[in-house]
Formats: sequence, structure tokens, C-alpha cells
Amino acid sequence: MSVPQEVAYEGGRGVKIRVITPSTMREKVARSIEQYSAAARSDTQLSADVLDKGPESVDSVYDEAMAAADTVKKIEAAEQEGIQAVISNCMLDPGVLPAREKVFMPVLGPAESSMHVAAMLADRFSVVTILDALIPAFENHALKLGLFDQLASVRAVSMRGADLDDQERLQKAIEELAAKAVEEDGAHIIVLGCTAMRGLAMDVEEGLRKRGITGVPVIDPALLSLKLAEAFVDMGLSHSKLTYPEPPQQEIIGF
Amino acid sequence: MSVPQEVAYEGGRGVKIRVITPSTMREKVARSIEQYSAAARSDTQLSADVLDKGPESVDSVYDEAMAAADTVKKIEAAEQEGIQAVISNCMLDPGVLPAREKVFMPVLGPAESSMHVAAMLADRFSVVTILDALIPAFENHALKLGLFDQLASVRAVSMRGADLDDQERLQKAIEELAAKAVEEDGAHIIVLGCTAMRGLAMDVEEGLRKRGITGVPVIDPALLSLKLAEAFVDMGLSHSKLTYPEPPQQEIIGF
Amino acid sequence: MSVPQEVAYEGGRGVKIRVITPSTMREKVARSIEQYSAAARSDTQLSADVLDKGPESVDSVYDEAMAAADTVKKIEAAEQEGIQAVISNCMLDPGVLPAREKVFMPVLGPAESSMHVAAMLADRFSVVTILDALIPAFENHALKLGLFDQLASVRAVSMRGADLDDQERLQKAIEELAAKAVEEDGAHIIVLGCTAMRGLAMDVEEGLRKRGITGVPVIDPALLSLKLAEAFVDMGLSHSKLTYPEPPQQEIIGF
Amino acid sequence: MSVPQEVAYEGGRGVKIRVITPSTMREKVARSIEQYSAAARSDTQLSADVLDKGPESVDSVYDEAMAAADTVKKIEAAEQEGIQAVISNCMLDPGVLPAREKVFMPVLGPAESSMHVAAMLADRFSVVTILDALIPAFENHALKLGLFDQLASVRAVSMRGADLDDQERLQKAIEELAAKAVEEDGAHIIVLGCTAMRGLAMDVEEGLRKRGITGVPVIDPALLSLKLAEAFVDMGLSHSKLTYPEPPQQEIIGF
Amino acid sequence: MSVPQEVAYEGGRGVKIRVITPSTMREKVARSIEQYSAAARSDTQLSADVLDKGPESVDSVYDEAMAAADTVKKIEAAEQEGIQAVISNCMLDPGVLPAREKVFMPVLGPAESSMHVAAMLADRFSVVTILDALIPAFENHALKLGLFDQLASVRAVSMRGADLDDQERLQKAIEELAAKAVEEDGAHIIVLGCTAMRGLAMDVEEGLRKRGITGVPVIDPALLSLKLAEAFVDMGLSHSKLTYPEPPQQEIIGF
Amino acid sequence: MSVPQEVAYEGGRGVKIRVITPSTMREKVARSIEQYSAAARSDTQLSADVLDKGPESVDSVYDEAMAAADTVKKIEAAEQEGIQAVISNCMLDPGVLPAREKVFMPVLGPAESSMHVAAMLADRFSVVTILDALIPAFENHALKLGLFDQLASVRAVSMRGADLDDQERLQKAIEELAAKAVEEDGAHIIVLGCTAMRGLAMDVEEGLRKRGITGVPVIDPALLSLKLAEAFVDMGLSHSKLTYPEPPQQEIIGF
Repeated sequence: MSVPQEVAYEGGRGVKIRVITPSTMREKVARSIEQYSAAARSDTQLSADVLDKGPESVDSVYDEAMAAADTVKKIEAAEQEGIQAVISNCMLDPGVLPAREKVFMPVLGPAESSMHVAAMLADRFSVVTILDALIPAFENHALKLGLFDQLASVRAVSMRGADLDDQERLQKAIEELAAKAVEEDGAHIIVLGCTAMRGLAMDVEEGLRKRGITGVPVIDPALLSLKLAEAFVDMGLSHSKLTYPEPPQQEIIGF
Repeated sequence: MSVPQEVAYEGGRGVKIRVITPSTMREKVARSIEQYSAAARSDTQLSADVLDKGPESVDSVYDEAMAAADTVKKIEAAEQEGIQAVISNCMLDPGVLPAREKVFMPVLGPAESSMHVAAMLADRFSVVTILDALIPAFENHALKLGLFDQLASVRAVSMRGADLDDQERLQKAIEELAAKAVEEDGAHIIVLGCTAMRGLAMDVEEGLRKRGITGVPVIDPALLSLKLAEAFVDMGLSHSKLTYPEPPQQEIIGF
Repeated sequence: MSVPQEVAYEGGRGVKIRVITPSTMREKVARSIEQYSAAARSDTQLSADVLDKGPESVDSVYDEAMAAADTVKKIEAAEQEGIQAVISNCMLDPGVLPAREKVFMPVLGPAESSMHVAAMLADRFSVVTILDALIPAFENHALKLGLFDQLASVRAVSMRGADLDDQERLQKAIEELAAKAVEEDGAHIIVLGCTAMRGLAMDVEEGLRKRGITGVPVIDPALLSLKLAEAFVDMGLSHSKLTYPEPPQQEIIGF
Repeated sequence: MSVPQEVAYEGGRGVKIRVITPSTMREKVARSIEQYSAAARSDTQLSADVLDKGPESVDSVYDEAMAAADTVKKIEAAEQEGIQAVISNCMLDPGVLPAREKVFMPVLGPAESSMHVAAMLADRFSVVTILDALIPAFENHALKLGLFDQLASVRAVSMRGADLDDQERLQKAIEELAAKAVEEDGAHIIVLGCTAMRGLAMDVEEGLRKRGITGVPVIDPALLSLKLAEAFVDMGLSHSKLTYPEPPQQEIIGF
Repeated sequence: MSVPQEVAYEGGRGVKIRVITPSTMREKVARSIEQYSAAARSDTQLSADVLDKGPESVDSVYDEAMAAADTVKKIEAAEQEGIQAVISNCMLDPGVLPAREKVFMPVLGPAESSMHVAAMLADRFSVVTILDALIPAFENHALKLGLFDQLASVRAVSMRGADLDDQERLQKAIEELAAKAVEEDGAHIIVLGCTAMRGLAMDVEEGLRKRGITGVPVIDPALLSLKLAEAFVDMGLSHSKLTYPEPPQQEIIGF
Repeated sequence: MSVPQEVAYEGGRGVKIRVITPSTMREKVARSIEQYSAAARSDTQLSADVLDKGPESVDSVYDEAMAAADTVKKIEAAEQEGIQAVISNCMLDPGVLPAREKVFMPVLGPAESSMHVAAMLADRFSVVTILDALIPAFENHALKLGLFDQLASVRAVSMRGADLDDQERLQKAIEELAAKAVEEDGAHIIVLGCTAMRGLAMDVEEGLRKRGITGVPVIDPALLSLKLAEAFVDMGLSHSKLTYPEPPQQEIIGF
């Protein structure tokens, strides 16, 4: 098992939170530390890890199935190290539900966190994501959370590869769809549909304002997961073991 | 309009949060500061207020209607003072929805906050409250939030007055009902159904464990509201003005 | 407490019904008597009242919160006078639910009454109201009634002030939106979304027919509430005190 | 086609309402006139009819299918005679939906009417009916009306034949089940589940009170249908022809 | 009672399935045998029948009510003859639910069968049917099955009479609407909405592919019902008698 | 990749179906062939396989996550070999949804298949499974399928290891819970909740009859999946590629 490569803050009594990106690309360790540090409290000890086995990125339910097992193993390892909360750094929330059966600390999924908070702050939310192929996955996620009636729409920018690195172009594309979600689909709040849409929430909100769409919050699901993780650790709160019961012990080959 | 009487923390760049208890009893100002301080971050500036007009305590939907108008006015005043988030300190969330139409800062309701977080952490939650007469109100609250299917039950300890001051007796009564909610109603997580059940969440959780019911979290809705308020201010996140549109200007007699 | 200013019919054994308009404008007493008399049975004794405290008109959820307390007090007073049923004369049904906790006679809300009857007579209904800002309020009302799936849409004429007095222009605007509700939103029946759209139901129905849209009923929620009030008094039927339990006695300051 | 055999009231401008009992037993004509007259307004012209083809009584979904065709034909005939509203006098609402496609006047079903009004007056209703075999039928009726979540339970007295004529025994049996519906199933209002439970609503309500269950209304669905029929005719209101479109013309053999 | 006029296969141990077309046109006996034979297993003994009493074709809920009674009687007769499963050959599933109360063998409805299988194979389905007037009927069918949220839309080709015999024109019209259902309504799978749309499923699927819409299955509900009937007989599986309880014995006049 | 070890039937034009048991125990290959052969048509070519990587048996959502990836890979391999339909031989349906993104043939899950068919044949179903810890998983499965309202209950026999090999004892335990599901939870049909409860459906149904519970079908989900697989291949029917879109190509490490 790989050792997480960076620890951002080393404060005294701080909350120890691990971000696990379900990807085999090791450069994502540093990138996720950088991303989450933007919103971490000064007393939060942030660390990060990626997968040894699985896809480069999770772009489908198929990829999510390929990433889930090692994500779960990384979450188990984190708890054994003394980590107090884990975030699965992908909007399909890979491994979150199965890991909750094995561990006792909070395991946060960006989609679950942001959809519930969106439903607190508005009657209907839309998700703006990267790929069309993920639209059914988000619809089913809202259904499982009991929030399908509050989901106005899922829209995808349909961009890939190098295009995604062009932050300005990505932001414009998100803005365009967020505006359509409000004007055509009845959305009252926007959830960014990919944890890699880093740092764009405020800019998209500002962009909507310039188009005359004011008062529509934009949620960054990665950062929201971090804030909830900090709050849950503060409160000693975690998932129910009746919903996520301890699995029976048995040998598992290959993991 | 009364001036809030206490300010707990005076840190530098801190988050300014106001707790408004929908009651005309001024001693609740100090009591709520004390209650919320237990969970506040060190950089949170906590202040509190009560009502000039309304009931002594909100024990019915009728009382909630009598408390709502002045609660809303107090929330408006708080925003004008520079407060960054407000908590309506009662499990019927009095004034939360109408106030959101007037103000831009986050307005937190303990019921809304705790029911959504309960739904994140477990498949089904029960609320344990004070009075039987409030059971329909909580059921309707869950319905409005779209979380009725996740509500296992609402149970009431049926205690009043002096009995409530006997913390040990109150805790035992809550424990008893929480155990029934798990064993008979299928609850996987418990939400304390009154913001005055202060500081009991951990004790009830421990009490359940002693009865052999392990892994059932107990949520303190007051403290959870505070943690969410801190997180929302950190993230610059608030409610949608499409769901809560600005009301037209007009004279309102008597307020 | 003001004395209701007009009594329409003084028949012998008649049903005594009070219309309370949640507004501080006293001219609405006479206007509501005139409006409701059009549909009252010959043996119905109709009286009316307005508020001492509250907004001039209820144009938002905020206004509804400001109007609710005094509406409830007026309903309590009506029962003490011997009134047998009350109608809260506004499509946000202000005060209806809290008042039911205090009184035993039927308390009718135009929105509740008309949405349920619309659902009896058609698969899907649309509401055509005055202000865009009220759209979320009507959607949430349908949700609370369990009728959200039958709500095709809410549309608003976006007219204010003097424009509303131009009955012909108002009727045309309603017709236009009712036609769109049928053709674009799938509505099968139309509910007028403001109790001040008096006497327009038949005209709008006729207007739709002239546009080739036949067989689409238009419900006047004010008059429907009156007919249900008469029927409930005839049958000795009222709300359940298990859903609307008696609130505990306590002093309420300011009311 | 048989001529309806009795007309109760012959007032001048009165509302003409026909009660059609889906049964081939002609004595039910007089019995239904007597039953409905108890609640009719003085200006209501009440007439009644039964079936030429069909079962003696509707005690199953099978019977309902056998009764529906002739009930529909009787409703068509009533409209041609100048009748202004029809009630299908059975809690399975036989023929109501198909007849609405052919006629323009209101066609009332006791189950549809009473379930919607029960949902207006309370959070949850129970139906107390005659036969266990009808329980799934009532559950499915509530489902079709979109009111399944408000249905607390359906309970059956399991009485047949001569036992039903023993009004006192029937009333006691209903009371017993109504009490269980409140205490065990969470009902807040009771709907009598058979139009032949005539005149028992008030007595059952009184019986519940004597058992200490106060504030639980009991709805007589037959009489409620009549009151709604009167109200709809007064208002010129009927079902939507978009939900119940005109069927294409064609020969139908045997009817 | 008429004798079914054709028996397609006379294999030894085969499954005996009867197709009952709710129509009085006897030429539909041969036509339905031909239609269903296309998909029958070699060991399936297929027979067919039509009605003695009822409409020529079921084009409305009104017609369905006129067809139901004799369809039920034909199903009862089939079971007495030793038939092992029956299909009601019409997309309104006439007689299916009431017949299940009387018989023990499986009774299949094309709409029920195809809507459930569509929901297995895709998130959302659309129905493409013949007449606009049937749209509410299909929506209500999905509602009764608990599948309303999975219904993307119902669309109708609005063709009648001779036009329907022009298979090529019919297919083009279905294709057109199926494409719109996918592109505008969000359908992921198409259900043909009339059992007379025989043999068109594969052609419509191919037609969609030529328009660039690939991977959208098209379900022939008649043939699917047959395959389920064969499977249920193989497994000894039929409907629950708790959902469809035996009706009490009584005389039924006219049937 | 392992080669499937047995092929049951080698008929000419037969349907090629592969049963994949999500377990690393190779003896399950022969056992599943034997189990499924009982219900296969004479022209069905049955083959079977197990996993190279994963748990010995799937007894939790955690195990399901550990089994999913290799199950998906086995399904991909099956399609490449020319297999026409695959069954994931476990009631948690491991790998079914992600595999549908990669392959075009039908992929059957026993839970999905049996829950939908149960909903066709009865108003409410209960699942009787092995372990208490799986109850939340089945509830969530029903929720995802949109069938939560039809789920009466999930009950578990709480047996493990050697006890499960005692078929008589297992059958008695299932019978006991099935009876409770009917009598206490309102179930009308029973779904066996483990594909290893082989050959017990008819015996449990008979056992219920002996206890006086007649007319309650018991579904064997494994065999039902096989019958649906045969039917879907016959009809050329498979899942929608709009619900299950092709995942983007990328390297996946470790699989």
C-alpha cells in the first residue's frame, strides 16, 4: 500500500482528513492537497492518496466499479493510520457506501454531500458535469438519495482532455449550461458535477450574475465535503452502523 | 428592537453568527450562548437574541405562527448589523423560510439541517421530541423537505415544565424512546427533537450502547446548525434567491 | 379586535361563514362580501373581516408570515362569536394550519381546497397567479398537500397595481397563460392563483374555448372554498384534532 | 332502459342529481333515495336508479368489472334526461372514470370524493370497510388518486348478509376497527368504506369519543359525494375533457 | 360461449396459451394467432378468441369498460378448458385485474408486462400509441404500476382506419415519434403502445438507428407478454391471491 | 482469464447463456450449472464461471464492491466468446449495471428480475434472505428500482455456514419468516433473497399452504433470471445504451 505523499497542515489538535482520489495517476496526490487546502481550516491536517489498482479517471459507472475496491482498501488503511475522516474525491462517490461498512469514521462523498446541501438551500438543483455519459449516473444517484424530485436536470459540457485544462473555456462552458439549467430546466441552485472543476464555483456564480442571473448559488462539492468532514469530526458524528453493518470476515483474493 | 445581550467570542477575522431563540424569555439569551459555545470554533463570534413579541416557548404550530413574524424581524435586523449567518433556535424552524426571502446570509433551521444530515448518514431516522402534539408538525416538516420516506417515526417523551429541568430523567426518557425507535420503528439514526435537549446527544448515544444498541448516532440539531452555519459562511454559500425571492416592498402594520 | 363590518344574509337557520382577508385594508371587507355573495346559498350568513396587524396584501411567503398571527387571532375570535366556518381569503392559505389547532370549526384555505378538487377532476392542474415570486410558494403548497405530481406548472401574469384593476387586460393575460399551461405544460384543468381574480373563472374558460381549447375547467378557489365550507357545516365535518392538536396554554406577548 | 323510480324533491330551480346504485336489486332505488335525502339541500331534486345487468352487489374488483358497463350506460341516459350530476353509489366508484369520457356533467365517486376530503382535513386517513377481500382494491384506489402516502390503513369488519342488517352490531364493529386504525395504524380521520354504512358516521364518531378518542372525524362518503355534487353544479364545475376525452364513435354489441 | 377457432401448435407437453382480443370482430382470431405465432416456442399451443359482447376495438377507457366483462368471462372459460395462461390482447389490459380474482393461471396484460420490462432495461421509457385520447389512460396505467416516474412520455401517431393498414406509413409515424420521445422527452427505451402494431418493433429500432439514434430498444408488448406467459407457466408462477382474492359467489345478470 | 468449465446443453440453434457466480470458489461452477439446468429450456446452452479475484461469497455491500470488478471482466469476456446473455448469480446483482455499459447482450440480475416480476404479480412483496446485515442493501435495491413502495419487508433467517447446508432446516426457517412477512408485514408474494436458496421456492409455497397461507407465490430469483434471459434473447431485446452508455477507453491497472 502506498504512503500518502503530502501532509498540508501539521497543527496540534487538528482534525486529520484524508482525500482519496480514485485514480492511478500519482500527480493527483499533490493536486488534491492543493485543491482542498484552499478551504481547509487552519487546524485541519490534510493528507491525500490515489489508487494502486483502477482506472486513470472515473468517467463512467464502469470505471467506478473498477475503482471501488481499491478506494475501499485505501479508506480502511486510512482509518488504521488514525485518520478521522475520508473524502472520496470524485462525483460518483466511489467506494463510499461499501467503505462505510468497514470503518467507523465519516466517509464523505462529494455528490451525496452537495446534493443534500443543495436541497437545503433551494427547491431544485441542477448538476453540470463533464460527460454526457454520466448523466444517467447522476440521476440514479439523486434517486438513491431520495432527492430525485429536487433534481431539475443534469447537463454536460462534453469536453475532454486538453480542453479541460483550458480553465477559461471550461468556465464559459459551465456558465452556459448553468444558465440553461436555470432558464430552461427550472434549477434554483447549481452543483458542479466533477471534483476537478476546482475553484470555479465563485467564478461561475459571478458569470451567471453578469448574464443577469442573480441569487443562484454554485456549490463546489469537493470543498463542501471537506467542510462537512471537519464539522462531523468536531461533533463526533459518523454514519449509522445499522445502515452500514460490519461485513462478515472472509478472505478476499486479489486485494 | 432589542440589542442582543451577549457576544461570546471576539476573535479577529471570525465568523459572526447570531442565535435567535423564538421566545420572549430574556434569560434564554445567555442560555443559548452557553449552549452553542460548546461547539463553536475558536474564531466564531457568537451572539444571541430573543423575541419582543410572541410566545414564551414554541410548543405547537400555533405558537410557531405567533413567533414567526418577530423572528423574521430579528433576522432582518441581524443582517443589517453585519451578522453573517443566523440560526432559528427551535426545532420547528420558525421564520426560516420567510426570512430567507428578505436576507442574503444563510438562515439555518435545526430541523432542516439535522434531517438532511441524518439522511446522509443513515437510511432512516427518528425524531425524539418533547410533546405528542408536535408529532404531526415534524412529519410535515420531513414531507416538505422531501425526506418523509426516510422518517422512521417521531416519538415524544411527553414531559413538561419542571420535569424537563431534571436532566437525568429527561435523558433516560429520550434513551427509552430512542431504543424503541430503533427496535420497533426501524430507525438507524436519532435526531433530538428539541433544541433545549442540550448536551444530551453523546449521553443518549452512550446510553443506547449500554442497552446493546451500538452504532446508532444521535444528532444534536442545535450544534449541527452551528457547524453548518460556520461551513456555509466559510464557503460563501447561502440559499437561492430563486427559491426565496425578494418580497415586494410594502408597509406592514404592527411590526 | 375590530368588528366585522357587514353581514350579507340574515336567513333563519343559515350557515354562518366568515371570510377573513389577510390584509389591513378595510375596504376589502365590503369587497369580499360582494365577491363571495355571488356563490353563497340563500341560507348562508356571510360576514367578513380584515387584519389589524400585517401587510396590505400577501404577495410573498414573507408577507404570509407577517399576516399569519393576526389571521389566526381573527379566526379564534370568529369561533367565539358563533361563526361555523372560516375562509382565509388568500391563495397562500395564511393562518389556516395554525388556526386549526385552536378552533374546532372548519377553516378553509382556497389553495388547499382548489388543489384537491382540481386533482379530483383532472390528472394534472396548473395554477395561474399574479407574481413570479409566488411560484415556489405554490409548488411547495402542492408538495405539502401530497399533490406535487399532479401539478403541471405555476405561471404568473407578472402584473401589479393599477394593471390588476383593468379586468379585461387581466383576463386576457390569464387566458394567455392558461392556454400555455395546457399546450406546453400538460395541464388539464386551471386553478386561478389569487383570490382577487374574482369572477373571472367562467370568462377564462370561455376565452380558452374561443382559442379552441375546450373541456378545460377553470376553478375559482375563493368560491370553491365557500361551497366546501357550506358542505362541511351541513355535514358536521371538520379537521382532525389529531393532525391539529390543541396547543398548550401560555401567554403570548403582542397578540 | 329502466326509468328511475322515485324523485324525492320537485323544487323549482333545483339541482337535479341522480344516484345510481351498481346493483340489480330494484329495492335499492327507494333505499338510496331515502339515504341521500337525509343530506340533500331543499332545492335538490334527487332521483335514483339501479342496473339491468350486473351483480346484486359489488363486493370485489370482479363484481366492479361486471357492474361497470351498465353503470356507464345509466349515466349516459341520465345526462340525456337532463340530470345535472350523477353519483355512483358504491365505494369502488364503478363506472366513474369511463362515464366521464362520455358525459359532461359531474360524475362523483364516493371513494374519490371522501379520500380527497379526508386528505384535506387530516394528515392520514383509514378506511373501514365490510370485506377483507376489498382491502387491496382500496389501497389501489388511493394509489391511483395519488393519496397512497396519506392512507394509514384499510380495515374490514368481515361481516356479511344478515349481520349487516343488525345496525347496532355493525356500528360496534366499525367503532372497534376505527379505534384500532387510530391507535395502531396512525389514522387521524376515518372514512366509512361502504356506501351502505348509512347514517353511521355521527354514531361512530360519538362511539370513538366514548372510548376516549376525541377529535377524529368520520366521513360518510355517500353524503359527502352528494354535497360535492351540489357544489359542483352550483359552480358550473365538472371534470376535464383532456383527462377524460370523448371516445370515438363505434357500435358496441350487447349494451 | 364461442369456441376459439384456431389452435396453432399441437405439440405434446406444450404450454397452452390463449390470446383473447377484446373485440367483437371474429377475423381477429386468425390474425392474433398469426401475430403471436411469430414468437411462440415450438412447444407452445396457441389458441385465440374474441368477444361476443363489447366494442369492435378498444380505443378509450370507455371502450375498455364495455369490453372488460366479456373478456373476464372468456378468461374464466379458458381456465375451465385447461388453458394455462391467458393474454388480454390490448394495451389497456382490459379485464386483467378482475379476471385474476377468479382464475389461478397467469393472466398477462401487454401494458403491465412491457412497462415493467422497460423499467428493467432502461431508466425511462416512452409509449408510442395510436390515439391522443389514450394518453391519459397510459399515464394512469404507469401510475397504478408504480412506474410513473420512469415514464418519459406518451405520444400518439393520431392515425385511424385505412391509414393504419398502410404499414410503411404507420412505421414512419412511429419512428418519428420515437425519435422525438428520445430527443425531446428523455426516453431511453420505446414501448409500442398498441398490440396491433405487429411486427414493427425491429423495424422501428432499425429506423431509429438510421436516424443516428442507436442503442434504443423497442418493445413489442404483445410478443413480450407471450414470452412471459411461457416463462411463468414453466416456473409454475402466477399472481398472488392476496392481491387478487376470490370474489364472493353471487348471481350476475346478463353475463 | 479462466475458461468456464462446463457446458450443460449442446443443442443446435440454442440460446447461449452464461451464469457467473461472484465467488472465487471453483466448485460453484458445477453447482450453478446443476441449479440452473433445472429450469433451462432444452435448447438453452448453459455455461458457468466464477471469479479469479474477489470474496468467497458476497455477504455484504463491501463484498459486492470487492466482487464487482472481476464479475464485470468475466461478463466482457463472455460476450467476446459469443455468449448471448449473462446472469450475475447473486441477489445483490454484482456487476450488472457497470457491465451493461460495456456489453450489448442482456445482463440479468436476480434481484432486479424478481422484484419487477413480484410487482407484476402482487401489490407488495417481501424478500427473505440469509443475513440481517443485507437488509439495508435490499431496501436500497428496491429504492433504486423505483419499487420501494411495493416492498413490504426484508427478513433474514440469520443462518451461516453448515446450517445453510441443512436444507430442511433452512426451508423451515424461510417458511417461518415468509409466514411472518405475510401476516405481520402485509406481503402478498415472497422473493427468495439468496440465489443459493436453490430449489426451495415450491417447497416454501407448499409449506405456507400447510400453515393455511394459500395463494402466496414464492419466486426463485435465479430461475426467473434464466427464463427472462431466454425470453430476451428470443426477442432480440437488451438494455438501453442511453441508460448504460459506452464508457470512454482507458487503461485500467490491475484488471
